[in-house]
Amino acid sequence: RKSMRGIRVSPQSVLQSLGVPKPFKQVIDVSSGDPHKSGLKPMSFLRQVLAVCVYPELLNNEGLSLDVRLRAQRLLEACDGGSVGSYGQSSGVPHVKQSIVEFISRRDAGVSSNTEHIFISPGSQIIVILLARGEEETQSAVLTPMPCPHTLPMLVEEAGVKLVPYHLIEEQGWAVDLDELHRALKAARGRYEPRAMYISNPGNPTGHVQDRKSIEEVIQFAAAERLLLLVDEVYQDSVYGPDKEFISYKKVLSEMNSEYSETVELISFHSLSSTCMGECGLRAGYMEMVNMDPEVKHTVYNMRSAHAPVTGQLALELMINPPTPGEPSYDKYTQILLIQATLSQNARRAWQFLNDLPWMSCQPAMGGIYLYPRLHLPSELIEQADVLYCQKLLEEEGVCLGAGSENGQDDQRYHVRLCVLAPPATVEEVLARLRTFHLRLLDRFP
Amino acid sequence: RKSMRGIRVSPQSVLQSLGVPKPFKQVIDVSSGDPHKSGLKPMSFLRQVLAVCVYPELLNNEGLSLDVRLRAQRLLEACDGGSVGSYGQSSGVPHVKQSIVEFISRRDAGVSSNTEHIFISPGSQIIVILLARGEEETQSAVLTPMPCPHTLPMLVEEAGVKLVPYHLIEEQGWAVDLDELHRALKAARGRYEPRAMYISNPGNPTGHVQDRKSIEEVIQFAAAERLLLLVDEVYQDSVYGPDKEFISYKKVLSEMNSEYSETVELISFHSLSSTCMGECGLRAGYMEMVNMDPEVKHTVYNMRSAHAPVTGQLALELMINPPTPGEPSYDKYTQILLIQATLSQNARRAWQFLNDLPWMSCQPAMGGIYLYPRLHLPSELIEQADVLYCQKLLEEEGVCLGAGSENGQDDQRYHVRLCVLAPPATVEEVLARLRTFHLRLLDRFP
Repeated sequence: RKSMRGIRVSPQSVLQSLGVPKPFKQVIDVSSGDPHKSGLKPMSFLRQVLAVCVYPELLNNEGLSLDVRLRAQRLLEACDGGSVGSYGQSSGVPHVKQSIVEFISRRDAGVSSNTEHIFISPGSQIIVILLARGEEETQSAVLTPMPCPHTLPMLVEEAGVKLVPYHLIEEQGWAVDLDELHRALKAARGRYEPRAMYISNPGNPTGHVQDRKSIEEVIQFAAAERLLLLVDEVYQDSVYGPDKEFISYKKVLSEMNSEYSETVELISFHSLSSTCMGECGLRAGYMEMVNMDPEVKHTVYNMRSAHAPVTGQLALELMINPPTPGEPSYDKYTQILLIQATLSQNARRAWQFLNDLPWMSCQPAMGGIYLYPRLHLPSELIEQADVLYCQKLLEEEGVCLGAGSENGQDDQRYHVRLCVLAPPATVEEVLARLRTFHLRLLDRFP
Repeated sequence: RKSMRGIRVSPQSVLQSLGVPKPFKQVIDVSSGDPHKSGLKPMSFLRQVLAVCVYPELLNNEGLSLDVRLRAQRLLEACDGGSVGSYGQSSGVPHVKQSIVEFISRRDAGVSSNTEHIFISPGSQIIVILLARGEEETQSAVLTPMPCPHTLPMLVEEAGVKLVPYHLIEEQGWAVDLDELHRALKAARGRYEPRAMYISNPGNPTGHVQDRKSIEEVIQFAAAERLLLLVDEVYQDSVYGPDKEFISYKKVLSEMNSEYSETVELISFHSLSSTCMGECGLRAGYMEMVNMDPEVKHTVYNMRSAHAPVTGQLALELMINPPTPGEPSYDKYTQILLIQATLSQNARRAWQFLNDLPWMSCQPAMGGIYLYPRLHLPSELIEQADVLYCQKLLEEEGVCLGAGSENGQDDQRYHVRLCVLAPPATVEEVLARLRTFHLRLLDRFP
């Protein structure tokens, strides 16, 4: 099976190459998470505060509520020279880092956090991967779930690191399997130097949410095999499966005995782009490093290329430190709860819809923003089935999904990826066009 | 001489380690360019437009002038979903790229430019360096001026590329010397694979400005030796030496015969951080690629880690496309001319002042934001003289300069670096404290 790298389905290129009239008026792209592009509205509180920070004369604008202006004033005081135009420290604005450790402690029911372990960056994945780059002759490798986030394979490659896949067990709701981890590691050892294990929880694109026991197993595996754990927890505010809750790797680790809690190296990352606020364009996230070698931390702190924009950092502070009940902006801020409810409803609706289609099956999403249904296509269609399916769907119905091969699938299973963090009407339109296309396709292969 | 890497002089660390009372109230850090931190004010036009883009309800705010609101409306229309929170294309917002090519054409008296050769990024240096990374066994190398921008050595190292220094000729106003280029290249060949040559014009930290003849020589050298030219032109709006003007490498190349103009690979970069606007915290710059291999361009376009924040991209558009005479905001915008005049006056004032000190000499700056005076210290002080000088100056007088070793100097010449893009009163205070320290130091070694 050929590598699909660089053959990403692109709405522009496909449509430009076709001069013929289309049965649709507009292309809908749900192949990746870009909620504002999909029509979700930004949080007004966040944008108001940010506007004042950008143009501080608005501090005197009485059209903005008092808590907005006070908050902006506090954030401006935290910026060097009182301006979002100054660089700030490379690891992030200290006030924002302080808010982050308080947020983490609240989230983890009191487990302590320290600003010295926090690093704010414009896109944390690449830094995380760089950490796994070694000095040895043997190429460093990162154990990576299959499927994995569709942006990951190229990042790993950019960093000069080998991606070693471990399969998630689809039939068990994309569970992490210990035997499979051992198999993958054994297959890599000797040829590569496995230094780290990447995991996303809630899962991207699989939507699974790990329980405490599964997390403990992964930590024990990492400890025994001396692997750095790279934990993508960017969808931590999007858990909606029945009886599911987000538990951070750091919290679980801190509650294990000292053989683990004081030794296992762990980096957790979170991002402004991935939460229900969907502020992708502002470019800020953070990572928390646990038990990391001080020299590695020093290296990260010196990566000047990793400066996050100050505007994004301030938005990050607002995300983790929203208005509280009683503040004038609190009522508006509950907008975020509506978005979370919409996401949950979209995920359930799309899951039922897709499972009702012939030749398609879909595990339910418990969290995150994607569904990742499997295509069961006739053998005539098997070669690069996911890519061709997505291309045809785009050409014929103007819907852009992501092909599972972008998520690292190369196991003769074919999946497509769709983001459901979008207005419900958009999701309905996507599903309707998908059904039309899917049924027509199957008609051709009776 | 030991490597100074990682021993960057830091105001925080030095002062925290000393519990004793200080003769100064405030530390002044002029070791690098961070103009808003130094007290320069942001352009109100830029910030007004940006505030409206962040919080579009301000489109109805009649306290803001009409051209501000119209401009914001146009920029918002250029964002996916009308929001600065959407990702946009990885190479940049198309409308901003269009403005960039128009800016380049105006600047270069009509030489054409193409949006397909423009790539917007949050910090272009690292990408530029990555391009020089090869696949061969032999380590790739970049010819780099000594002195070079102080952020460069670590970036080159991060990218896994070898820095090969070529000396600028201090006594000739930091001229680029062809014989020295050949010497450096010859010394590197065999041990490394030189793939590129980095050059900054106007010079960072040297303040020299190349004339057409010097640029032509460099281009001919790069052509003969098949080197990719990485041209740092971020100070192009800051040329103030008598009879000096900024001429872009691209313009010179385009006017040479086709043996050069159609073959020499050139990447020029520019940045929002480095101009007199000093918007460092917004994180956006661009590069223009000339004669580049399409495959390299494809690689760059796929670097998802290189997404620039949309807010910064819009600010970039405003920087290169300022209000024109007749528009309501034009009068305010002339603020930028005042800053440019201040920079020029600061550079001349500090140059005269530093040359009047014993045991110090300084080449005049013709452009850019730094002075880079040389220390002529007694032999007792020679070991790591620049670093010790900067540390003592910080401890005793609360002024943070940069040590020349950070700029790659390792030739038994010792320099310090100071940024003069700051309010004149700040520059005066820096110079006064520097003189006090310098004369006291010399008193100890009569």
